[in-house]
Amino acid sequence: MSFLELERSLGYKFRNSNLLELALTHRSNGSPHNERLEFLGDSVLNFAITIFLFEKYSDVDEGGLSRLRASLVQQNSLATIASELNLSRYLKLGEGELKSGGCNRPSILADCLEAIFGAIFKDSSFNEVKIVIEKQFVKLLNNLDLKTMCKDAKSLLQELLQSRKISLPRYLIVNINGAAHNQRFEIECVISELNIKTKSVGDTRRAAEQSAAKMAIDIITSSNSNYLDFNLYNYKSIKA
Amino acid sequence: MSFLELERSLGYKFRNSNLLELALTHRSNGSPHNERLEFLGDSVLNFAITIFLFEKYSDVDEGGLSRLRASLVQQNSLATIASELNLSRYLKLGEGELKSGGCNRPSILADCLEAIFGAIFKDSSFNEVKIVIEKQFVKLLNNLDLKTMCKDAKSLLQELLQSRKISLPRYLIVNINGAAHNQRFEIECVISELNIKTKSVGDTRRAAEQSAAKMAIDIITSSNSNYLDFNLYNYKSIKA
Repeated sequence: MSFLELERSLGYKFRNSNLLELALTHRSNGSPHNERLEFLGDSVLNFAITIFLFEKYSDVDEGGLSRLRASLVQQNSLATIASELNLSRYLKLGEGELKSGGCNRPSILADCLEAIFGAIFKDSSFNEVKIVIEKQFVKLLNNLDLKTMCKDAKSLLQELLQSRKISLPRYLIVNINGAAHNQRFEIECVISELNIKTKSVGDTRRAAEQSAAKMAIDIITSSNSNYLDFNLYNYKSIKA
Repeated sequence: MSFLELERSLGYKFRNSNLLELALTHRSNGSPHNERLEFLGDSVLNFAITIFLFEKYSDVDEGGLSRLRASLVQQNSLATIASELNLSRYLKLGEGELKSGGCNRPSILADCLEAIFGAIFKDSSFNEVKIVIEKQFVKLLNNLDLKTMCKDAKSLLQELLQSRKISLPRYLIVNINGAAHNQRFEIECVISELNIKTKSVGDTRRAAEQSAAKMAIDIITSSNSNYLDFNLYNYKSIKA
């Protein structure tokens, strides 16, 4: 198969086209497959996007930067770029995956795109793959919703719950320790309807509330994320 | 304060020592602080370790590589390196943190070390910071327990449970879909004692079991991890 068109869309010509072929080979096709390249490419992508955001948004704090990055490297964004590159035409899948429509499955497309970034890095250098990544992400980078992304955790949690018609969280002071000049606030964030309670400690009430809200967001979004693409019936904290 | 000794231990001399000072400044000390550099440094570190592992362990699969990386970049490993560098002597903390022993808190030390890696990257180049990182991690890199790390998920889960004297998981076939040549197995991994059930789908029974086992490991280890450094009383899957 000729990769001419794909390389043109990527804006990168492989020195060693075996690397590109490997990046396009799903594990269902047998060994060798693209998962090691995906491991590499995931980190390449994360680093390239991190540098871009760090340099461009010098007035956005680390929480905002994290949210911006998460929105860019999530599976849906990657699958969209993969579709624009027509990756499904080039994928090498096993018979089972092929028949069950694997070539259009977002997770397979997203993983394959990461593997391609890994392959380009291995074929050239970080500087070269960074240029390719920025070219592929240019639309997403230009459409970043800074206003939403850079909101603080309490505001975000509130909006998240309102959008699902869930009652707002309550923040309870569980404990205040220390002398007057050195207090530590222990705050609980309670979302009764979802049976979620998170607890955090901070030097100020506000800091502890923000941190507890962030934990609640992490729980809500991760249980909906594709990462946890399964039914989690029960989950109990087990302390070693 | 002179950073001469710290720079000697790091094996790196800053061109702009303000960057090092910023990396050592905790948010409790007010703005500006090290959290943006930490965001950058976390990604720098992840990338440097990823490249190292990818190149060195060419016969280890992506699951093994992920576990190796996780063991290296975890808070405890970072805090150990930070202690060896005597970072607590250089930290700039707010009064509250200082009095409550913040300069020896593992999370503060680990974050600060990441911020230093971010600062070195900004002060020089990825190649230079990669050398610094490999020097600091050399002991950990030489002591990697490949035998444990590269085990498959079912074996790891079994050992994890045995070490805590918890009954072994059961793997139940919940469903088999598709024609004979194209079956999809839906498997549930049940750990009754911990009230954990995970579910996964795969082309083979073995693949689905491995994937369900991995989810169970993620749940068990994340609920013990420092990342979730709080009491999670209840956690329910909420599907959007």
